[in-house]
Amino acid sequence: MKVGGIDYRTIWLSEEDNSVIRIIDQRFLPHQFVIEDLHSVAEVVQAIKEMHVRGAGLIGAAAGYGMYLAAMEAGKTDSFDKHLQHCAALLKSARPTAVNPEQAIKRQLKAIMSASTVSEKIAIAKESAISIADEDADHCRKIGLNGVSIIEQIAKKKSGATVNILTHCNAGWLAFVDYGSATAPIYEAAQRGIDVQVWVDETRPRNQGAGLTAWELINQGIPHTVITDNAGGHLMQHGLVDMVITGADRVTRSGDAANKIGTYLKALAAHDNQIPFYVALPSSTFDWNITDGVKEIRIEERSADEVKYIEGWDGNKISKVLITPSHSPAANYGFDVTPARLITGLITERGICNSNEDEILKLFPERREPSCRD
Amino acid sequence: MKVGGIDYRTIWLSEEDNSVIRIIDQRFLPHQFVIEDLHSVAEVVQAIKEMHVRGAGLIGAAAGYGMYLAAMEAGKTDSFDKHLQHCAALLKSARPTAVNPEQAIKRQLKAIMSASTVSEKIAIAKESAISIADEDADHCRKIGLNGVSIIEQIAKKKSGATVNILTHCNAGWLAFVDYGSATAPIYEAAQRGIDVQVWVDETRPRNQGAGLTAWELINQGIPHTVITDNAGGHLMQHGLVDMVITGADRVTRSGDAANKIGTYLKALAAHDNQIPFYVALPSSTFDWNITDGVKEIRIEERSADEVKYIEGWDGNKISKVLITPSHSPAANYGFDVTPARLITGLITERGICNSNEDEILKLFPERREPSCRD
Repeated sequence: MKVGGIDYRTIWLSEEDNSVIRIIDQRFLPHQFVIEDLHSVAEVVQAIKEMHVRGAGLIGAAAGYGMYLAAMEAGKTDSFDKHLQHCAALLKSARPTAVNPEQAIKRQLKAIMSASTVSEKIAIAKESAISIADEDADHCRKIGLNGVSIIEQIAKKKSGATVNILTHCNAGWLAFVDYGSATAPIYEAAQRGIDVQVWVDETRPRNQGAGLTAWELINQGIPHTVITDNAGGHLMQHGLVDMVITGADRVTRSGDAANKIGTYLKALAAHDNQIPFYVALPSSTFDWNITDGVKEIRIEERSADEVKYIEGWDGNKISKVLITPSHSPAANYGFDVTPARLITGLITERGICNSNEDEILKLFPERREPSCRD
Repeated sequence: MKVGGIDYRTIWLSEEDNSVIRIIDQRFLPHQFVIEDLHSVAEVVQAIKEMHVRGAGLIGAAAGYGMYLAAMEAGKTDSFDKHLQHCAALLKSARPTAVNPEQAIKRQLKAIMSASTVSEKIAIAKESAISIADEDADHCRKIGLNGVSIIEQIAKKKSGATVNILTHCNAGWLAFVDYGSATAPIYEAAQRGIDVQVWVDETRPRNQGAGLTAWELINQGIPHTVITDNAGGHLMQHGLVDMVITGADRVTRSGDAANKIGTYLKALAAHDNQIPFYVALPSSTFDWNITDGVKEIRIEERSADEVKYIEGWDGNKISKVLITPSHSPAANYGFDVTPARLITGLITERGICNSNEDEILKLFPERREPSCRD
């Protein structure tokens, strides 16, 4: 997507030096646009761990590229396989609960092992890293092409008047390689000349909406308004929201969706005001093994300091301010689960479906038998 | 209530000099405890306008004390009545949409006019200012005595296990003269030895929960945990909330409650999880003239900068950081309306009732005929 008028992905191979991975260092957004060069597996691990890159699709792609660097590094040692496995373990440990890096690493190991010489192994690792990133981008593009039909229908119903879409957190291109999940249908709609306006939930505690989604939309030239997480219900009561689209971190085979904390509250408000609530996700986000999201999905608790301190631009640099009494305890739950009954539909790369097991399995018939995660 | 172990009200007459009003300057909380002396009507107006004092009950009391200073100032002029009316207009203009200052000013004008000599007028203004403050404190104390029964019942049902109460914004003693509305039952419960724990919504954009409610609870020694506004739904889904109590800014005769933005979302979550949701209010908060809160209560839009910038303690002083792209627009709705159907009950100084017109009028039979606001 565009940054200052120029097309970027969130991660790519340096054109000058094919042994260097380039990323947008998201820690500085929206205040500074910083591109970082990663030269080693250690640097990729650090970038994932310290959230220079974040978002399911993007950290999957980063792990894929990391395995390409791992193959190059292993080629310089006496024991290729041992070093490769060591790097795989390091990359996996950078974000142990995420599914996508694990999948990318497994896929890379299989590809690399299928080649015989070191130079072939490196070549196949590079090719496979690019494929993983390309597939992520392609799935998001298709989510956009599928999801745009919903926006088109609303625009038609409103006789071309502005379609107001609310989103929570950042399920934009910054969380993937390109396009994003929740944002892809919005970008596609804007491309087709539909008049869209986006309500951007700031998404405390880490403010990925205010910081990342707003930055994406500014750069794509899409009208938007940042609001507090508290405001969405009021907007919906007053007819100012036509639809909600969010991303997801994990979706059960029955259609319950774990997503950034606060998503459930917006789904309740949408339901109370008969506003369609959609979850956009590449199929890699499904967890085919579980059916009860509220009971079965363990919700990560993060540092209390993310609640007690807020990070922003002080005029000169990024700094932190304390917003509570210094001795007050705080709790920081990362995600919540929106029950399927509150979700109008799921937008995937294969199409749109109602959020229940029967309808999901019509799109993904190969998952009819509960199977282990691949 | 206690601050560092010493009893305070939010506003009082200086004991050394009865022509000086003292307030807690809330702009510095929770980081610094600053007491400010107000010597003139102009200083009272500024304190209300610039939010040194805030909250319905407290700004009503401040206007009452302001009228006492006005009587003293008028006594030094040639035209007592003209100066008094001028001061009344100034005090009213400090927060024109609030009901309580208007009521306090009317009451003071009536009292002052009933006396004949200047010294009598000043004496009656002082007495009346103290009465207005005392009544506010007394109403809140009674809200506590009435509301505590709900907490006692829950404690009994839980066989003495911790009662977890969620609150939004600050409807604590800092918003009134003493005790608070939403907090009064909690303080009374703690006094009676009931094991309570309070989930404190930070309440963006101005963070009155994180800043003021948490500070109150720390000083009263009541266990509490600050959470983002996004977290309450998740807590309720997992049985971690036994009841919700909030305050209100305006309640219709039918029981719809306007309160700080985001209250509606918590009411929806409480309803979805069968958790009791109470609104605590002194009867001065009722607007007896309206019945449809969502349609009839105009919601104030405040400055976008309150959303874009967050204020906190940088280690040395209170400062602001920007959390959005500098050019992103933001919208800042101050309140939302929770429909009566989502409210389990109203806790008033006269007792507790279901949130509908019939039940409210049983507690306030003098309001059976819709009348003008007094």
